[in-house]
Amino acid sequence: MIGDNGDNHRISINALKGEGDLRGVAGGGGGGRNAVYTNEALSESTISMNPPNEFVGSNDFILVDENKTHSTKDAIKSIVPWMKRKAKGACTKKMLYRRLPILSWLPKYNSSDAIGDLVAGITVGLTVIPQSLAYSNVAGLPAEYGLYGSFLGCFVYIFFGSCKDVPVGPTAIASLLTFQAVRGHGPAHAILLCFLTGLLELLMGLLGLGFIIDFVSGPVSSGFTSAVALIIVTSQVKDILAIKVSGSTFVEQWISIFSEVQNSSVWDAVLGISCIAVLLIMRIVATIKIGPTEVPADEKCPEEDKPTIFHKIVNKFLWMFGTSRNAILVVIGGFIGYSFYVNGTPPFKLIGDIPQGLPDFKVPSFGYTEGNNTVSFTTMVSDLGSGIIVVAMIALLENIAICKAFANGKTVDATQELIAIGLCNIANSFVQGYPGTGSLSRSAVNNASGVRTPFGSFYTGLLVIIALLFFTPYFFYVPKAALAAVIIAAVVFMVEVKVVKPMWRTKKSDLIPGLGTFIACLLLPLEIGILIGIGINLLFILYHAARPKITVERLTSRTGIEYLMLTPDRCLIFPSVDYVRNLVTKHSIRQAAPAVIDCSHIYGADYTAATVIETLTKDFAGRDQPLIFYNLKPSVCAVFEGLSPKEFVVCYTEDELDRLLKSRNDYKPKDVLQV
Amino acid sequence: MIGDNGDNHRISINALKGEGDLRGVAGGGGGGRNAVYTNEALSESTISMNPPNEFVGSNDFILVDENKTHSTKDAIKSIVPWMKRKAKGACTKKMLYRRLPILSWLPKYNSSDAIGDLVAGITVGLTVIPQSLAYSNVAGLPAEYGLYGSFLGCFVYIFFGSCKDVPVGPTAIASLLTFQAVRGHGPAHAILLCFLTGLLELLMGLLGLGFIIDFVSGPVSSGFTSAVALIIVTSQVKDILAIKVSGSTFVEQWISIFSEVQNSSVWDAVLGISCIAVLLIMRIVATIKIGPTEVPADEKCPEEDKPTIFHKIVNKFLWMFGTSRNAILVVIGGFIGYSFYVNGTPPFKLIGDIPQGLPDFKVPSFGYTEGNNTVSFTTMVSDLGSGIIVVAMIALLENIAICKAFANGKTVDATQELIAIGLCNIANSFVQGYPGTGSLSRSAVNNASGVRTPFGSFYTGLLVIIALLFFTPYFFYVPKAALAAVIIAAVVFMVEVKVVKPMWRTKKSDLIPGLGTFIACLLLPLEIGILIGIGINLLFILYHAARPKITVERLTSRTGIEYLMLTPDRCLIFPSVDYVRNLVTKHSIRQAAPAVIDCSHIYGADYTAATVIETLTKDFAGRDQPLIFYNLKPSVCAVFEGLSPKEFVVCYTEDELDRLLKSRNDYKPKDVLQV
Repeated sequence: MIGDNGDNHRISINALKGEGDLRGVAGGGGGGRNAVYTNEALSESTISMNPPNEFVGSNDFILVDENKTHSTKDAIKSIVPWMKRKAKGACTKKMLYRRLPILSWLPKYNSSDAIGDLVAGITVGLTVIPQSLAYSNVAGLPAEYGLYGSFLGCFVYIFFGSCKDVPVGPTAIASLLTFQAVRGHGPAHAILLCFLTGLLELLMGLLGLGFIIDFVSGPVSSGFTSAVALIIVTSQVKDILAIKVSGSTFVEQWISIFSEVQNSSVWDAVLGISCIAVLLIMRIVATIKIGPTEVPADEKCPEEDKPTIFHKIVNKFLWMFGTSRNAILVVIGGFIGYSFYVNGTPPFKLIGDIPQGLPDFKVPSFGYTEGNNTVSFTTMVSDLGSGIIVVAMIALLENIAICKAFANGKTVDATQELIAIGLCNIANSFVQGYPGTGSLSRSAVNNASGVRTPFGSFYTGLLVIIALLFFTPYFFYVPKAALAAVIIAAVVFMVEVKVVKPMWRTKKSDLIPGLGTFIACLLLPLEIGILIGIGINLLFILYHAARPKITVERLTSRTGIEYLMLTPDRCLIFPSVDYVRNLVTKHSIRQAAPAVIDCSHIYGADYTAATVIETLTKDFAGRDQPLIFYNLKPSVCAVFEGLSPKEFVVCYTEDELDRLLKSRNDYKPKDVLQV
Repeated sequence: MIGDNGDNHRISINALKGEGDLRGVAGGGGGGRNAVYTNEALSESTISMNPPNEFVGSNDFILVDENKTHSTKDAIKSIVPWMKRKAKGACTKKMLYRRLPILSWLPKYNSSDAIGDLVAGITVGLTVIPQSLAYSNVAGLPAEYGLYGSFLGCFVYIFFGSCKDVPVGPTAIASLLTFQAVRGHGPAHAILLCFLTGLLELLMGLLGLGFIIDFVSGPVSSGFTSAVALIIVTSQVKDILAIKVSGSTFVEQWISIFSEVQNSSVWDAVLGISCIAVLLIMRIVATIKIGPTEVPADEKCPEEDKPTIFHKIVNKFLWMFGTSRNAILVVIGGFIGYSFYVNGTPPFKLIGDIPQGLPDFKVPSFGYTEGNNTVSFTTMVSDLGSGIIVVAMIALLENIAICKAFANGKTVDATQELIAIGLCNIANSFVQGYPGTGSLSRSAVNNASGVRTPFGSFYTGLLVIIALLFFTPYFFYVPKAALAAVIIAAVVFMVEVKVVKPMWRTKKSDLIPGLGTFIACLLLPLEIGILIGIGINLLFILYHAARPKITVERLTSRTGIEYLMLTPDRCLIFPSVDYVRNLVTKHSIRQAAPAVIDCSHIYGADYTAATVIETLTKDFAGRDQPLIFYNLKPSVCAVFEGLSPKEFVVCYTEDELDRLLKSRNDYKPKDVLQV
């Protein structure tokens, strides 16, 4: 009869925790691989004693601290000190240094830092000026707006930025998203978008919501970036061919391009294509190294194998020449345009007038009058719609990707980057900039130029200001096709074909969200596309939460009793628990042996799981079949015991398991039961 | 230097798998709790040899079978036999018995089954007739439609249903959802809804999509049911008070009730409230037992403690009287209504005319003409909108909940129930029924009446047919308030206040989705409400996938080398992997000791994880700090090795770990590195 033994079987977890002996035995037991398991298993009790050793992620969801008292009063009482601690934490010196990273590096700033930053800042500046001019075309804005968004943010980032390699400014992706959000409404909308995006990023940073981008996986990010690159190339083809293109999606635009291709201007096309070719060749030039390879200073090698001074100078020059390719192309393009212009109308399109001087420093317009129409703030916001959120999220994503790429083993503070990028965008909106973020291509240039601190951005910003003050009249002569070439030559490398192979080799199923995002972004609006990709990816997580893997083994205890060992490999929560119950029921009925559920890997459970476990224990009791939970975490045990299930038997050592199985050896499977 | 040792450290997993010795050592090692761990750890290799022992859930997502060859050719080749196997599986005798459960029980049908089914069928019939009349009012349809939907489905379920306790017919929840989906468009829409819902359920069943309801957790289901009960009560209050109520949401309706309450009819109110009181009292009567409690036949007890025949008859009568309370109330109400009617106009509202006879058997109308308007099929479908999906899903949810409640330790076949309920609804739509499913209250009656097989439904259906043929003229006199009382007395017990306490005791955070669903369902349309609840719940899963718990311990190896042991407790996938990397980096830099990552609990990984692990190994190599992966599952190891990370060191025994740590003992932390 079950009734006789049932209560004895149930071992209180609290009694167990107090047993010093058990710990000793377990800790000292078995050598080899078992020892570590012991460590791990003990961490449950170790944790509560040494809280600083425990790094709790989803603790408040899955894991219940077993030392926690469960009274409401205590919970309310503990809020006050918690808030005090939080408030105190927000005002410490450590937090100040974290929120103002400049405090960390400025005191240690030295002359070699200054030289590194100067060289890198100017090199980046030579890239950012032509790119800004070009990207404003992607955003559907006049060319000067790219420059407007490329200086003040750089200065703000010096104070708040945590990554030395990030030069803030217009990027290909942010420009395209701006274009899609503004939808032809003009600069006022783009500036407001910049302000609101910045505000949203700042708010998210202050609320610590940077973790949201963790939900964008590598494949989704690659798929999105690749699709964006193709869309941008498509948008620039019209400038290369000097044709008018209709349609909003990728497919529509290409159909339109093919039907219009006979109207294209030969001069523009020739100029554009040769510019692309020149840029690609110059890109290769930057990587050319003559002479022997340089070796690290601490390694010894014969004198003749070292590069000479001449080699070094040539290499440096080649790199500099290749890296400044955009600036060089624009200058040469400008000269060509000028020489045609002075001899009559040039056969290709030029950028045209760009207003000289710095933009006014003014509050972004929260409404304006256009002819007889007054466009109110709410109208503008509803025009921008979800674009505000999308631009903010993707800008963050781009920026964090850069920080990670150059983190060099350090941790990346997403919260601080959100605050920094948010403030940069808010600042930019006051000088009529449109949304920007860190650009991967310029960061790479920055890093390769030997930037030492975020102060390098100062020179970049200064160069942009100089360009605005003195060079804008000369930009007039730059051919549009040359700028389109700058963009195309930059973004074609964003098509991440190279990730397909490693993805195939590591985890083939990851190609599904990757390709899904890519295709969805090409066929649908970008924000819908990336949401579909993220959705597919999250479905994978949910599926895997719903369908754990269960190992079923028929084992024999040391006292010779056969039993069924079932080992689920992850936590028991609502989507999976019925599946687990069905499997356990099916096998235990079919195999008609005492069932032992090995719970070593079950790190969490919820109310739904507790109800199902209650039913399961009831079912086993009903057919008199023993069911033993082996090695159940105390925190999970507490969840199950909340429903006070009958016949709930837990044990923690194999000795105990043997004893339990022996004491229940009277179990004879009834043959009336069938699956 | 790392370069010297790096390659030696890397232990191929394939070489390891062949090592019979290792298995022997691990299997024979340590007693106590360690032995089981050994079993579990070995199951990796055991599994591939005994595939039938392995029950694979999300295998195709997380786990890669290490014996699988990774060539595309093989994958394509294996599709053909797989399809053959599937096709064969669909045609086996086992599958036939599964799809037609009647084949299992009919051959064994005996006289005691027949008596049990007869009694239960008639008892349920006496409940279903008054409930059908009442629920059609909840659905906003004339009273006869409830009866139309209560007989053919019962007959169909006999053949396809897998749960003996389910009587198919209109339910409170399905009626309310029908009302919300039809939105006053009339019976033709409701009948089409019934057909489409059935079709959708059938399709989902054939595609095996029954698992979807696993994603509705206990708390969400309770919150939803409770909200539905309150909304139904609200909708019936207008009949009890005989007032007109405006507004669609719960709050609006109550505001309207309070403003209209002075116009209410005293007679209706008095009748309704006394009917509710009578029903609640009769409900208690059903549970009264006189005399000593009955004991199971196999237990011995003194003769005087056994209930006498008299006791038994009285108890049976009390139960029968209480259980038939709805029928009795409707009959008495009918007599009262009749006696008032023959003496002039009754002071309360009556149901009124109900057409006599069975409904026509005809195809549901896929479009109709209303005055001058022709309502096409597409218009009707777009009128019903998401209602089709919602009704199908919720009907399934309700039905599976019943099957589980009465499963008695057997597994519930959600796929078969989907097919059965789908066919029932399709059949019902041909006799002008509206969507129905198994009703929990009637199933409880069925079960308590001693039903033995699904054949009990036959008598229930027969009783409904008899009612339609002969009794409809008498239903004319039943007061509306009495029917409202039937509904209210049935649904108030659906408000699941009782689940709050166990939820609080097991897992407090589960109250959030529960209460969230409840509030959202009261304030918003039901389908939005339940989606919000499910969404909140899924966010919990995602959060816990994103934030694993990591235990950090400083241990000393047997050769006296201090090292850092980091143990993440769940799989490494994209939302969590950066968090894990940050923690590992932070602690390993701060503590400046060799780092060992215990991967015992990591059962899966993806491409994003592989890239991050690659960076992590590179970072550690960069600062010359040893990083060892301990006890990494071969399947996960294969994912990580897809990117061929440098310095990727895996080991599986503590001896090996000691040796590795000793060989890398030259590591001296650089003090230039800071967090």
